[in-house]
Amino acid sequence: MKKIITLVTDFGNSDFFVASMKGVILNQNHEVQIIDVTHQINAFDLAQTAFLVSNYYKFFPDGTIHVVVVDPGVGSNRRPIIVKTEKYFFIAPDNGILSYIYETSEIEYVIHINIKNHRFFNNYISRTFHGRDVFAKSAAWLSLGLDPREMGNTIDDIKKLKLPKAKMTDNKLIGEIIYIDAFGNSITNINEELFAKKVSKGFNLHFKDIIIEKISDSYSEIQKDSFGAIFSSEGYLEIFSNQGNFAKNKNVKLGDPITIQRKEVE
Amino acid sequence: MKKIITLVTDFGNSDFFVASMKGVILNQNHEVQIIDVTHQINAFDLAQTAFLVSNYYKFFPDGTIHVVVVDPGVGSNRRPIIVKTEKYFFIAPDNGILSYIYETSEIEYVIHINIKNHRFFNNYISRTFHGRDVFAKSAAWLSLGLDPREMGNTIDDIKKLKLPKAKMTDNKLIGEIIYIDAFGNSITNINEELFAKKVSKGFNLHFKDIIIEKISDSYSEIQKDSFGAIFSSEGYLEIFSNQGNFAKNKNVKLGDPITIQRKEVE
Amino acid sequence: MKKIITLVTDFGNSDFFVASMKGVILNQNHEVQIIDVTHQINAFDLAQTAFLVSNYYKFFPDGTIHVVVVDPGVGSNRRPIIVKTEKYFFIAPDNGILSYIYETSEIEYVIHINIKNHRFFNNYISRTFHGRDVFAKSAAWLSLGLDPREMGNTIDDIKKLKLPKAKMTDNKLIGEIIYIDAFGNSITNINEELFAKKVSKGFNLHFKDIIIEKISDSYSEIQKDSFGAIFSSEGYLEIFSNQGNFAKNKNVKLGDPITIQRKEVE
Repeated sequence: MKKIITLVTDFGNSDFFVASMKGVILNQNHEVQIIDVTHQINAFDLAQTAFLVSNYYKFFPDGTIHVVVVDPGVGSNRRPIIVKTEKYFFIAPDNGILSYIYETSEIEYVIHINIKNHRFFNNYISRTFHGRDVFAKSAAWLSLGLDPREMGNTIDDIKKLKLPKAKMTDNKLIGEIIYIDAFGNSITNINEELFAKKVSKGFNLHFKDIIIEKISDSYSEIQKDSFGAIFSSEGYLEIFSNQGNFAKNKNVKLGDPITIQRKEVE
Repeated sequence: MKKIITLVTDFGNSDFFVASMKGVILNQNHEVQIIDVTHQINAFDLAQTAFLVSNYYKFFPDGTIHVVVVDPGVGSNRRPIIVKTEKYFFIAPDNGILSYIYETSEIEYVIHINIKNHRFFNNYISRTFHGRDVFAKSAAWLSLGLDPREMGNTIDDIKKLKLPKAKMTDNKLIGEIIYIDAFGNSITNINEELFAKKVSKGFNLHFKDIIIEKISDSYSEIQKDSFGAIFSSEGYLEIFSNQGNFAKNKNVKLGDPITIQRKEVE
Repeated sequence: MKKIITLVTDFGNSDFFVASMKGVILNQNHEVQIIDVTHQINAFDLAQTAFLVSNYYKFFPDGTIHVVVVDPGVGSNRRPIIVKTEKYFFIAPDNGILSYIYETSEIEYVIHINIKNHRFFNNYISRTFHGRDVFAKSAAWLSLGLDPREMGNTIDDIKKLKLPKAKMTDNKLIGEIIYIDAFGNSITNINEELFAKKVSKGFNLHFKDIIIEKISDSYSEIQKDSFGAIFSSEGYLEIFSNQGNFAKNKNVKLGDPITIQRKEVE
């Protein structure tokens, strides 16, 4: 069966970088299917990348090779790695952009790719474009069925970002904004399970200058341009404006705090 | 033969939404070819979507599955539908975005997709992302050869947008701008056939502060940065600026009126 | 083996133009693989296109068909051409956008496509969209194995852009900015070979108000937001800011001059 390779980068869609990566892959394995996730990550934004990666990978078939190249340390001694989970391969620089994967997947092993092995890599590797010379090349090899363990040594000291966790204190569930999508929907780190356990019986949600007292069942249940809270497609609490851009209107930033005050039940 | 699925959404290219849709499709049918038309529809713009859809679908092979997800009513009781024409399948919310298709194609039947049928859909369907959980999933089923009629009941009360029609009064053909492309070309609802029948023998075209008296054969026939009228690749009368952005320069908006005065022939 | 067609245009990603081209291709050859390089060329920018094309094509498998449609002269008498090099096919309008290819590849022959040959083209060819009616159609034919020489006559008077060359005068190597990527990296026309031969033993690089005295081995070797010089992935000297946008910060424009003064070695 044809292998699938997905690509996330911060290379944008206006240059030749992504095409060069695809050329390298197709030159080695003509029969692979390449899926662009996005190339519009904010340049060098590791936290945004990490969250984004946690949201699409699991919909792909087993064996999919997920390549993630947001790589401010390209050409330095930061390590290129392959992470093998129960179902997938992830190829990325070891700078924390796979942090959510480490939390939510069973990791079988992590390989530090040895880019000096000329069985797999060209003699010449550019100083500025490992997306093409290392990561795309590695993906092509895996798509041909190569065992990642042939490409380097296993390591166990991978780099992890400090992921913001929601926390319960007294009667308050305190979280923050961890992602803003193109519609301006502002996604928090409070998931449905935590919410159900802690505050679902009655609450006041405080965010910036607004208060919300119920969870909506659909965006359109709220009056046009007014706002509400809903559980996102990934199960996170999300603040939105119906057909408006909530984040823009309220100047929402990543890290903005949200407080959900549990109402006392007598 | 490998099935083709085309995608139009207003999801943008910077989030994980489109990739999740593709994952769902490929997970169910590894051998499908997915073509992105655009994901940059202005958020929730039904009229823009409707016109856009009428312009690319007919170039694809028979049997292509065209998915169109611009869906402000997601999660409400608006209906997800499959429209079967002589050659194609269209999958969309029933909010009018297929209106031009209803006018220009032979409709064989329309199905209201039953999303509670667990033979086809997961138990859990998100409140905010039917693009993934309903529309992509339905496209995957059709791509496997499923008869759409197995997915729900036929309906005959589909929702239609009121499409702006050009009209002839006395010696004037009156139309309006219905689409502005990325070059700033401003496309009207006056097609070549109507034009030929009504005013082709001599005319003054009035639009904003400009007057045009002839139809150009190519953009470059007009002086650089000057403007002209031409028939678009789809046969609509279009106002353009040679190598300039006409719509930006003249602040053109959708709905702006255009008048073509027939010259008297004695 | 499945043929690959790559696409470069200035059509943007928000309209239906690129999808129409893909429909035309797939309708004729269902089994081709289409790769988008970019559709975000600045409208009608021939020089940017020419440089961009020189950077990705060579990573693709032999036999790849590279389509490049930046075409201000569409519908005029500018010629549509097929350029056959040792390994690839290029299809483009004859307006100079393949100029770098003429310099760096062995050209086997150039064909002026005869669009009046109804064996290959529809009777109706639009005045404004040869991307669809001529270039995509030609690519589809080539992907089916057609010999380009069946599509028109060979010509030898192709149009070439005047490409800016770096030059050495006394002890100065003088070049200019020929490309700015999405990160703001500012690429010059000074390549590694020329640099090594002329000034590598010691130099002062002058660009705008900055002076650089060494070549970096990686972006991250330079302090964050500070600037440096490095050889790009394609071997061109490039001025960058580590994790900043150099071009934006320094208001770099295409054509801005750069001077590298050789230090005297006693």
